[in-house]
Amino acid sequence: MKYRIESDTMGEVKVPADKYWGAQTQRSLENFQIGPIASMPIELIRAYAYLKKAAAFTNHQLGVLNADKKEIISRVCDEICRGELDEHFPLVIWQTGSGTQTNMNVNEVISNRAQVLMGLQIGTESAFVHPNDDVNKSQSSNDTFPTAMNIAGLKKLQEHTIPSIENLRNALARHSHAMKDVVKIGRTHLMDATPLSLGQEFSGYVSQLDHAAKAIRNSLEHLSEIALGGSAVGTGINTPHMYAEVVADYISEFTNLPFTSAKNKFEAIASHDAIVESHGALKQAAVSLLKIANDIRLMASGPRSGIGELILPANEPGSSIMPGKVNPTQVEALSMVCAQVMGNDTTITIAGSSGHFELNVFKPVIIYNFLQSAQLLGDACNSFAKNCVEGILPNKERIRQHLDNSLMLVTALNTHIGYKKSAEIAKKAYSENKSLRQAALELGYVSNEEFDKWVDPNKMIHPDKE
Amino acid sequence: MKYRIESDTMGEVKVPADKYWGAQTQRSLENFQIGPIASMPIELIRAYAYLKKAAAFTNHQLGVLNADKKEIISRVCDEICRGELDEHFPLVIWQTGSGTQTNMNVNEVISNRAQVLMGLQIGTESAFVHPNDDVNKSQSSNDTFPTAMNIAGLKKLQEHTIPSIENLRNALARHSHAMKDVVKIGRTHLMDATPLSLGQEFSGYVSQLDHAAKAIRNSLEHLSEIALGGSAVGTGINTPHMYAEVVADYISEFTNLPFTSAKNKFEAIASHDAIVESHGALKQAAVSLLKIANDIRLMASGPRSGIGELILPANEPGSSIMPGKVNPTQVEALSMVCAQVMGNDTTITIAGSSGHFELNVFKPVIIYNFLQSAQLLGDACNSFAKNCVEGILPNKERIRQHLDNSLMLVTALNTHIGYKKSAEIAKKAYSENKSLRQAALELGYVSNEEFDKWVDPNKMIHPDKE
Amino acid sequence: MKYRIESDTMGEVKVPADKYWGAQTQRSLENFQIGPIASMPIELIRAYAYLKKAAAFTNHQLGVLNADKKEIISRVCDEICRGELDEHFPLVIWQTGSGTQTNMNVNEVISNRAQVLMGLQIGTESAFVHPNDDVNKSQSSNDTFPTAMNIAGLKKLQEHTIPSIENLRNALARHSHAMKDVVKIGRTHLMDATPLSLGQEFSGYVSQLDHAAKAIRNSLEHLSEIALGGSAVGTGINTPHMYAEVVADYISEFTNLPFTSAKNKFEAIASHDAIVESHGALKQAAVSLLKIANDIRLMASGPRSGIGELILPANEPGSSIMPGKVNPTQVEALSMVCAQVMGNDTTITIAGSSGHFELNVFKPVIIYNFLQSAQLLGDACNSFAKNCVEGILPNKERIRQHLDNSLMLVTALNTHIGYKKSAEIAKKAYSENKSLRQAALELGYVSNEEFDKWVDPNKMIHPDKE
Amino acid sequence: MKYRIESDTMGEVKVPADKYWGAQTQRSLENFQIGPIASMPIELIRAYAYLKKAAAFTNHQLGVLNADKKEIISRVCDEICRGELDEHFPLVIWQTGSGTQTNMNVNEVISNRAQVLMGLQIGTESAFVHPNDDVNKSQSSNDTFPTAMNIAGLKKLQEHTIPSIENLRNALARHSHAMKDVVKIGRTHLMDATPLSLGQEFSGYVSQLDHAAKAIRNSLEHLSEIALGGSAVGTGINTPHMYAEVVADYISEFTNLPFTSAKNKFEAIASHDAIVESHGALKQAAVSLLKIANDIRLMASGPRSGIGELILPANEPGSSIMPGKVNPTQVEALSMVCAQVMGNDTTITIAGSSGHFELNVFKPVIIYNFLQSAQLLGDACNSFAKNCVEGILPNKERIRQHLDNSLMLVTALNTHIGYKKSAEIAKKAYSENKSLRQAALELGYVSNEEFDKWVDPNKMIHPDKE
Repeated sequence: MKYRIESDTMGEVKVPADKYWGAQTQRSLENFQIGPIASMPIELIRAYAYLKKAAAFTNHQLGVLNADKKEIISRVCDEICRGELDEHFPLVIWQTGSGTQTNMNVNEVISNRAQVLMGLQIGTESAFVHPNDDVNKSQSSNDTFPTAMNIAGLKKLQEHTIPSIENLRNALARHSHAMKDVVKIGRTHLMDATPLSLGQEFSGYVSQLDHAAKAIRNSLEHLSEIALGGSAVGTGINTPHMYAEVVADYISEFTNLPFTSAKNKFEAIASHDAIVESHGALKQAAVSLLKIANDIRLMASGPRSGIGELILPANEPGSSIMPGKVNPTQVEALSMVCAQVMGNDTTITIAGSSGHFELNVFKPVIIYNFLQSAQLLGDACNSFAKNCVEGILPNKERIRQHLDNSLMLVTALNTHIGYKKSAEIAKKAYSENKSLRQAALELGYVSNEEFDKWVDPNKMIHPDKE
Repeated sequence: MKYRIESDTMGEVKVPADKYWGAQTQRSLENFQIGPIASMPIELIRAYAYLKKAAAFTNHQLGVLNADKKEIISRVCDEICRGELDEHFPLVIWQTGSGTQTNMNVNEVISNRAQVLMGLQIGTESAFVHPNDDVNKSQSSNDTFPTAMNIAGLKKLQEHTIPSIENLRNALARHSHAMKDVVKIGRTHLMDATPLSLGQEFSGYVSQLDHAAKAIRNSLEHLSEIALGGSAVGTGINTPHMYAEVVADYISEFTNLPFTSAKNKFEAIASHDAIVESHGALKQAAVSLLKIANDIRLMASGPRSGIGELILPANEPGSSIMPGKVNPTQVEALSMVCAQVMGNDTTITIAGSSGHFELNVFKPVIIYNFLQSAQLLGDACNSFAKNCVEGILPNKERIRQHLDNSLMLVTALNTHIGYKKSAEIAKKAYSENKSLRQAALELGYVSNEEFDKWVDPNKMIHPDKE
Repeated sequence: MKYRIESDTMGEVKVPADKYWGAQTQRSLENFQIGPIASMPIELIRAYAYLKKAAAFTNHQLGVLNADKKEIISRVCDEICRGELDEHFPLVIWQTGSGTQTNMNVNEVISNRAQVLMGLQIGTESAFVHPNDDVNKSQSSNDTFPTAMNIAGLKKLQEHTIPSIENLRNALARHSHAMKDVVKIGRTHLMDATPLSLGQEFSGYVSQLDHAAKAIRNSLEHLSEIALGGSAVGTGINTPHMYAEVVADYISEFTNLPFTSAKNKFEAIASHDAIVESHGALKQAAVSLLKIANDIRLMASGPRSGIGELILPANEPGSSIMPGKVNPTQVEALSMVCAQVMGNDTTITIAGSSGHFELNVFKPVIIYNFLQSAQLLGDACNSFAKNCVEGILPNKERIRQHLDNSLMLVTALNTHIGYKKSAEIAKKAYSENKSLRQAALELGYVSNEEFDKWVDPNKMIHPDKE
Repeated sequence: MKYRIESDTMGEVKVPADKYWGAQTQRSLENFQIGPIASMPIELIRAYAYLKKAAAFTNHQLGVLNADKKEIISRVCDEICRGELDEHFPLVIWQTGSGTQTNMNVNEVISNRAQVLMGLQIGTESAFVHPNDDVNKSQSSNDTFPTAMNIAGLKKLQEHTIPSIENLRNALARHSHAMKDVVKIGRTHLMDATPLSLGQEFSGYVSQLDHAAKAIRNSLEHLSEIALGGSAVGTGINTPHMYAEVVADYISEFTNLPFTSAKNKFEAIASHDAIVESHGALKQAAVSLLKIANDIRLMASGPRSGIGELILPANEPGSSIMPGKVNPTQVEALSMVCAQVMGNDTTITIAGSSGHFELNVFKPVIIYNFLQSAQLLGDACNSFAKNCVEGILPNKERIRQHLDNSLMLVTALNTHIGYKKSAEIAKKAYSENKSLRQAALELGYVSNEEFDKWVDPNKMIHPDKE
């Protein structure tokens, strides 16, 4: 490989000649050989590009950066946002906890790429836009990294996670509506209980996801508060007047998302409670989804020796050894994602609480876990909706059979003959393996006509309308 | 001990003669010898009393319970709410996951206590208010227990946790204001950084707690949705028309808290996402509090060989062996509570996601953990505020000394002489153990007057006002 | 209430006249009103009594405590161990993180109770055994509290948790043996799979619990290393020569458990990795138990519309509204305990990693969570074994019916006609709702005799013995 | 892109012409678009190659696979192990929970690659080694995937994680030895306490890592038990006599690691307690490492306004805005890894407990988290050892200064003048800002000579040797 020599305040470093990064990136690459290379989420790098462009525009507007520098910085940022420079961001998550090295990676790439775009030589001391003095002007790693975190996080939630959860919610809602008259046995404690409709059952799932989406949305206001302008410790040192407000507006404009300047920059740098809050909502979604997933796989269990009330689409052969087997594979993928998100919440909780004084230095691990959860939840919801939920069919024969056999229809008799006699009927039917009707008549507690009138599953699911 | 004979649908049971509980409570007591007795939170029992009273009023209003029964049920419920019958609720958390046995415990106590109040014999078959047919009328364990959970939870948050967090927030805010001009060194990565004021530092804590309180409040709407009226599986079987809405109004009236009938009862019985959501917010508060606690104990470390910038009140001798030692004990209690809340969140996450079909059967463990977190967080905030924060004093001498020694004041030179020369000055000062001024002058990068003008900590903390 | 005046190095304090505690306990009681009173686990107090007695014996043997003092200290310690002085330990978990206040509580109670036993007045400055100089001689809170933690922890595991897990293991093993010939359908992905016997299925549970018990045992060696003799920071300051070794022997003798003096006292005071390790094993047991619990409740689901292969004992009426309902309540209690233990593991992980320098100050929350897990797991295993597992009956009719219907018996044909043709048979049988045999014959892939010979569930479960 | 047509029991599929995978892999690729492509850990794929080779050898030895097939399967497996076919394994973690699709991916690649090696056309029905009937012979996904998990896991621990922890342990031990005479102030509750040597302090870290390594090793026996031979549900259906034992021997031979055939295959397929157990030990290591990391960054805090007792190597510029700043970046990377491992433990706990009946279907998420933890912990230990610990220097001047100022040296007077008088001295010195000696003399409790004799830090750290 060919190299060029770059230098920083600590001395000279050899850098691959075909890469735009500089000395500090190279040091990080060598000093942090932890896990796979380039693991820092690319969404964070892109968020940084929005931010650097906004900073350049703001610095220019406020009179501390000339137009040419603004232009060239902006042009490189656009390239980064379009994904054209991804190979120049090789750093890992497991670096300095402030993400300073990734900030410098971005600064260096912008500086060096600018040289190339202007036909100048890269890697020189006399860069047209200096990494620290120009690209990083009016900024610190300490306020840019959390800002990039919130940009990447909010963008992912708004553009991916929330729409995907709603997509699944809508697929479930269509089923809920379509199956509103399919009366089936209810189950509590996994034991037969009073009936409800399949549509009602699915309406519970829809309601869970509505609440989950709402909880995520409730957290967005906090997440939209950005630290930029706080500079090194929150005071805004080395930033021009009105910088924080103007730069937030530019970021909103470039990302088309509603960011505001955090009222308290000290919090915004020293903690990541906004991320903790939003991820708490993602975890809540995972809790909901795992419940839904388990219900669906249990209802689809069988085909012959399980509950068998739902038929899931058969997307692939299920077994390498058992021929003809079909498994609830989409449910399983979704469930595994939920377990991942729950663990990520523990990581974010620990990392989020571990800041000291003016800086939380668990930033990279926090945003990595956050973006993983947000991406996986969205992807899994879409995959589950498309490849499973949309193709679900009720096994009406089985559903009817379960309903007819149920002993818990006896509950409808409570208000007529009391809890105790009703229990007597149910127990007799169970122990003598008889139908409820038979047991009720034999005990003489109801007449045939009363049984018909009172024990009607279709009425039991809408008691209000009696 | 003296006993009487009680019976239920499974047969006869011996019950202590001086206790109001009945057969089903007794069975639970014998079958679930897990952990300390009477561990089911008493707040849940009290919430049940509000609920049973509201149900009696509603049943009467809707014409399915006569006035005498309503009156006597209501009277016993008032006794329970006042804590007069606590000894009659002996059951443990680790019982049936629906809490059915606690529901029956309440039903039985109300029934039997009613007998006594009316001068009748208890423990008979012919109770004036029958546990199932009267006290439990229009109810199921499956909709009452989650309703009681939400009543107990919302009440605790509104009346204890939120005010306590705000109490601590206010104590911190008073310090933030009082110390707004105490300029001190900032620290990032635990290393000396640019200055800020002690007031600014504390303002970050205030902002964290403001956001935490807001996050808790955001969750209350979900928590205020109650399942009552859903009955066994959410359909509302065996409930009269308009029951759910009316009973929610009575509960609101009796508790003076704004409950509403859950739009979707299936969710409200089969999941506890509302509790998951609220506890997520409590966990966020714990994350904030642990950061604040750690900062304060670090700033108070010493007295001679630590950072020593804060002096905490000395409430007690700190050591059984080291004479004269004073420790940040309130900080430690608060920190332990935070760790507990974080673990409780894992429990609630697992339990909340483990429902099946129409019922989540981890109800008792969920509410136990929720109430523990809500109580401990509130108590710890109050204790920390009163016994620590209010008595904190800045060690101004030490603070000034740190500030004067700091090398990071050099940052103020960046905008005048550039990052690189500034770094040179800082490094020279560090390696030659000199002051910044001395190094700057020796290198000839600034004049004495420029140094005075540019390197002024008081300006560095309000750059906007330059 | 009547009071007496006690004093410590900070001044005078009013103490209830009928209690043996002194000034420092009283201060703690007033300064830490967090959660219910007296929440510090009583097992920890008892462990302290063993330790104080051992210290007195050791101090006497090594010539720094006279015989009379040793005797009287020892006598009070015996009273504490027998539970006679429980009311004198009112402190909460949420106190100083070193547990110093509980150490002083023990010291004060021993000192004051000694006065009473000797017929002297309590609460005086001139105590016969002084709390700090005699009872605490050669000790610090910093080495006694972790020692008491390990004593209480090891004792609980050895005397309660491990035997209880083995008790459940044996109950499952008896079933495994008794049902070794009950051939049933296997299930993978909750879908019908190749058969196994009920005994084989239960043998998996037995194996899990064997491994869990072994994992707990593997951790005991670390747990048996005690910090005592390390004194304030691990150096052993103010302890006589050979103190650490001798006191460990006395503790072993008094508790009848094999404690050793930790080779490295610095670790033993500054961290609680031994507790982290042991609790990790308890969490593993919870993971195993939750899987077992879920299997059993799923197999018992029904009675008519679930899997219904197991019949669990009916210990109590299952529902307040659905007459005759029987629920897997013991399974639910056990499951809730598992969720609690998993959350406790998060708490212990966070607390265990949060020590600073020479001391971990999350000691009380760590031992509280540890003992809760150890107690609940043991109790729940015993309750589950006695009230559920021992009474489990296989529903042989249902089991046979499921087996006969299964399509996955087709797997036995793989080695004779290949995976692809076997799949064809299974799919035909499923889509045309036919038996495997019928489909196989219609496709002409096997003869009737071959089917009989190859598709024999009894052979499929012991292929090795073909 | 060019395609070829592949087919399985469900029909035809288009597959990229230049890839060796077949129909089932392609279906998975299309049906599970969740997260980044090819996320299934490559170590798991390599482990599968060892396993497939061992199965081929065993099948041949036991007479069910001919020599030519064995040879060609073995040859492809060697290519996979050498990493030559990585691009042919595109599947994601978030697929079927049994990993069946990855098993089929391996089967298909081996089958098709074999065709190429033999000069035949790929993707045909008439493969020389059929994916199911030959490559998968005597296997199921259900026993191969857990076996591959344990192979990959044990290999990673033995070859990477354990040696890396020991590497760090040794680096710390060298410091412990080198600094055994550097006496410094101890700190408990972050407050000044009695002295110890820097070597003693580091010896605690060494002891923690010794225990952590031992805990990992304790778990290896369970991890070395493999499921292979259990086949679909644990009974070993379709496997020849002695298969399980022989194949375990071959795997041991090929991997050079001591695997054994699990005594109970039902457990080994239906649960992953061995992984839960080993990861519990990794989490314990994370707990230890986080404590060590925090201590080191606190001791290195400063350089002027912190504790400043250690000087860490300056590997890179620390700040993009604060010139000359050096930060504890290696500590931060390690700390973030610890937080990740703790969260992964929650994921594995949840996933590990969620199996049903004969199969745990959270296999991919479990092994992904396990391998991530094992890799990152090892990498971070090596990076921390090399780039930080080895270059640590004590700041002896600062250490001496702290020691000389300490008030807690007063503890040495306890045994001479009692706790109470000692406390009086310490308090006087603190409040009057005097030295201990001065306060002691002024109070008249000791003479100058006694002070010299009794208050000697060098003696206080080895009291046994007085």
